[in-house]
Amino acid sequence: MSHAPSAALSRRHRLVREALTRAGLDALVVTSLPNVLYLTNFTGSSAIVVIDAERVRFITDFRYVTAIAASRGAAHECPGLDLVVVDGSYDATLSSVIAAAPGPRVGFEAAHLTVARHQWLASTIANQSPAAVELVPTEGIVERSRVRKDDYEIAVVREAARRLSNVAREVVAGIRRGRTERQTAMRIDWELRSAGFDKPAFDTIVASGPNAALPHAHPTERTITEGDLVVLDFGGVYDSYCVDLTRTVVVGRAGSRVREVYDAVRAAHDNAIAAVAPGRSRFDIDAAARDTLTASGLGDAFGHGTGHGLGIEVHEDPRVSRRRPDIDAQDEPVAAGMIFTIEPGAYLPGWGGIRIEDDVLVTEGGVEVLTDVTTDLVEV
Amino acid sequence: MSHAPSAALSRRHRLVREALTRAGLDALVVTSLPNVLYLTNFTGSSAIVVIDAERVRFITDFRYVTAIAASRGAAHECPGLDLVVVDGSYDATLSSVIAAAPGPRVGFEAAHLTVARHQWLASTIANQSPAAVELVPTEGIVERSRVRKDDYEIAVVREAARRLSNVAREVVAGIRRGRTERQTAMRIDWELRSAGFDKPAFDTIVASGPNAALPHAHPTERTITEGDLVVLDFGGVYDSYCVDLTRTVVVGRAGSRVREVYDAVRAAHDNAIAAVAPGRSRFDIDAAARDTLTASGLGDAFGHGTGHGLGIEVHEDPRVSRRRPDIDAQDEPVAAGMIFTIEPGAYLPGWGGIRIEDDVLVTEGGVEVLTDVTTDLVEV
Repeated sequence: MSHAPSAALSRRHRLVREALTRAGLDALVVTSLPNVLYLTNFTGSSAIVVIDAERVRFITDFRYVTAIAASRGAAHECPGLDLVVVDGSYDATLSSVIAAAPGPRVGFEAAHLTVARHQWLASTIANQSPAAVELVPTEGIVERSRVRKDDYEIAVVREAARRLSNVAREVVAGIRRGRTERQTAMRIDWELRSAGFDKPAFDTIVASGPNAALPHAHPTERTITEGDLVVLDFGGVYDSYCVDLTRTVVVGRAGSRVREVYDAVRAAHDNAIAAVAPGRSRFDIDAAARDTLTASGLGDAFGHGTGHGLGIEVHEDPRVSRRRPDIDAQDEPVAAGMIFTIEPGAYLPGWGGIRIEDDVLVTEGGVEVLTDVTTDLVEV
Repeated sequence: MSHAPSAALSRRHRLVREALTRAGLDALVVTSLPNVLYLTNFTGSSAIVVIDAERVRFITDFRYVTAIAASRGAAHECPGLDLVVVDGSYDATLSSVIAAAPGPRVGFEAAHLTVARHQWLASTIANQSPAAVELVPTEGIVERSRVRKDDYEIAVVREAARRLSNVAREVVAGIRRGRTERQTAMRIDWELRSAGFDKPAFDTIVASGPNAALPHAHPTERTITEGDLVVLDFGGVYDSYCVDLTRTVVVGRAGSRVREVYDAVRAAHDNAIAAVAPGRSRFDIDAAARDTLTASGLGDAFGHGTGHGLGIEVHEDPRVSRRRPDIDAQDEPVAAGMIFTIEPGAYLPGWGGIRIEDDVLVTEGGVEVLTDVTTDLVEV
């Protein structure tokens, strides 16, 4: 169980119900597990929610029934939860629940339901109920609530970022020549758990020397060596919420090229953060980083986006990136309560790479940087 | 990169191409990442394969281009790989690759592609190519190859199971009163990494006392105490393959009820393993465990399946479980090369629970138990 207070869950249910009314839907089938967690505090690996104007029907199996029962009466109990234990398969159970929906128009999450499951459900429902329930594709109904964090979520992420910053200071201070990338990553994961994180939010990256040119390197048996740049990118899950941080250190004294690239990445990072405020375009925030690197001749060395939303998932909306005409028709402006990373980098194959990443919260007044670790170049 | 030899990849491509011919398809879009890994050795987080009779078109983004280039000429290079770097979005790039398929019938993985992506692709392709490429739903083309492991995979899983057994012996011997479940889980994860695993295969379970009655408990701050049953369920990813093991220990001297339930679960485990051989039904293997527990009055205490396939995913086919009439129309018999868990358990709310899990390989002659740790009741 996650620990959002019941009142926060009620508010989230209300937002979904308002969206259902606007869309003329009688119920919504929620199959995305992060969305299920957001609506119910459930942290297990299998459950489906069917929410309508009155009820939150919650489908899960034998393994989780005892845990659900234990949450009854708790301050984080899900309001209106109506437990349905799986009989046969999840989708067979779901089809019965859908058939009992209060009306014929039942939405589903088109970005999460697969074509195969949709086909099976649609044909099963057609056979079950001659009254013809219609499965209606929807996009992002729950995600649109999730993108602006509520007070409970902000408090959790703020605490998670504080703990991650402590870990980062330990980690940076503990980098040693002669240790492998893999050993260093093990140590980071240990520190994360020791700091109270449930687990790493993603596979920890320790990329040294030429490996630092790979933005998504796996830790290898390579030994950290004098002269290396070492990219350290790690995050943790704290009370179901993700935080994410990167620092790049140099082993020994930094040469002039290292300082030059580092300063450019840091300026990109600082300029992007300075561009964050309610009402700003996420494409403009990306441009603030990208244009800075381009001005230093490093535009082509920065191939990824400037940042991504953080929350129940480690990559969620908003995406702070270049506008892609084929999928970015909309430009929803940045708004208070959004939390995302700012993580420009420069990657030069054969030479190495540098990335600096912090987590920021958009506030009414502008921006709060949640992570708190020096961005000065550290020589170890 | 994973390390299947190029010849193994060629064989896997051939099996897919034979399936395409049988289905009258000109190409297959592979969006499932485990399937992409199986066909190409790629271990990153974003890629799509479009395989046809001649080529393996491999779509990935900037972050992975350097890693792909580095695998050229290696013993585990993917044969026939034709790199396509994402321009715009993945799906926009994919639609261009599909439009260039050698014929009009292009299969997709209906169990992995979402309704939203399918709709976007179908409409984009319809606009792009008046020659009308048809997207055809397919089920399990790559998975059907994956269910029987090849020699490379068997060697990797055997080694992984050997290492996991070593970890299990350390872990069982190291259980201490006064340590919390969470501290114990941290220690297990550290041992996994020290033994050469890339990471845990799933969230490690340490469930003590009443928590042992929850088959999928998260480790808590509960302190392990005299008289507890402690369920220890953990696994690791080794060279991209998953193994999984459970032992239950008792803290102090076991009472008569503990011995009784333990003996029943162990008999269920042993009887299920004895039922494994080529040609047997997976439902019969499940029944061998279930009937044993039922005979001891514990049938209702065993609510989950007896086992699941292991491989690139920690839960894959075959599912060793009760037959569910709504989805188990087929009963493909167990065959040599399949690898799965055998993990019966008994869970009694308020009292605790016991599970014993090993990993088995189906051989021509019967069964090989890959994990090797005593199943005697251990009192710590």
